[in-house]
Amino acid sequence: MESLTEYLTFTTKTRRAFVNITPQIEKLVKKSNVKDGFCLVNAMHITASVFINDNEGGLHQDYEKWLEGLAPHEPIEQYEHNKTGEDNADAHLKRQVMGREVVVAITNGELDFGPWEQIFYGEFDGRRAKRVLVKIIGE
Amino acid sequence: MESLTEYLTFTTKTRRAFVNITPQIEKLVKKSNVKDGFCLVNAMHITASVFINDNEGGLHQDYEKWLEGLAPHEPIEQYEHNKTGEDNADAHLKRQVMGREVVVAITNGELDFGPWEQIFYGEFDGRRAKRVLVKIIGE
Amino acid sequence: MESLTEYLTFTTKTRRAFVNITPQIEKLVKKSNVKDGFCLVNAMHITASVFINDNEGGLHQDYEKWLEGLAPHEPIEQYEHNKTGEDNADAHLKRQVMGREVVVAITNGELDFGPWEQIFYGEFDGRRAKRVLVKIIGE
Repeated sequence: MESLTEYLTFTTKTRRAFVNITPQIEKLVKKSNVKDGFCLVNAMHITASVFINDNEGGLHQDYEKWLEGLAPHEPIEQYEHNKTGEDNADAHLKRQVMGREVVVAITNGELDFGPWEQIFYGEFDGRRAKRVLVKIIGE
Repeated sequence: MESLTEYLTFTTKTRRAFVNITPQIEKLVKKSNVKDGFCLVNAMHITASVFINDNEGGLHQDYEKWLEGLAPHEPIEQYEHNKTGEDNADAHLKRQVMGREVVVAITNGELDFGPWEQIFYGEFDGRRAKRVLVKIIGE
Repeated sequence: MESLTEYLTFTTKTRRAFVNITPQIEKLVKKSNVKDGFCLVNAMHITASVFINDNEGGLHQDYEKWLEGLAPHEPIEQYEHNKTGEDNADAHLKRQVMGREVVVAITNGELDFGPWEQIFYGEFDGRRAKRVLVKIIGE
């Protein structure tokens, strides 16, 4: 069994953002020399997501509006978690909708993707350095 | 390490549908000869899901109604993504709630399932051929 | 390839509850002797979740309130599934938001976690014994 473990760091300029991280993951798959296996990509912070969807800016605006509707940032006082001094309870909720992690198949040494699949880092409480874990196992 | 990679294709007659794909996955587990490992099953399209829940028709009606409430198909113009000429922005949102993929344990050569677990393909923008990836690794 | 398969059983006193199961999973990682690999933790019942988030009681109250807003338990008659004699349709919906499973990287023989990541069992139809599967593979 071959394996590779790497950590990527992201610091978004805005509180919420979606970053296409597919090129970085593709490079790590090549580096791993794994031809057949699994690639786990997960947010290491609990107010961020890693998910797979479309690289289309309009859709990302739709996600932003939709998630704000499902779990609004304000008023901050509506959340018990924010009584600890935080203001990011909504980010913990949004991350559950979008997910913590993806597991992607590696076939013939590449991410085995459908035509539009791209991997995104979803940030819901940004403006500070946060990490993403990439672990590849296989042969 | 043993592995098996297969692609299943689904063309639903309706825009939205839930299809029980457990029998197909069970056959692939047998074919793989893996006795102990992981089985990844994921939608390769970003307006579809693979998820595990109950094989009960009433519940599937509840999912349909609930998801329409959370992310309505119409009016189409409410979504930025649909300004690209698409009408499936809601499908990209519904898929995030239901999930892209499942990872299932294989133990003693079988899917290691609880009493009611079944694997479903969830279609939110159907009436065309779409693929599901099955990758099994283990020993 | 090394592997370990174990089943944990939980019986919550209340219909809904969040239980921090990280210490049990850490023990199983040690027991597995896997230094580098993947740890799958999944609910075996379809009205329960396994998810990763913050071990903060206020946040768990926020999840409880938020999920009740997204998929209310009552009135029971609003759900087709409950016409089968069940009263837990809401639990099947809540579990989709929170997720069935997590896949966690194991590095240097330990769960490769960010600073606040903890694994929770999320129960949405409790007061009876339900199982969680832990499957570890790697080297």
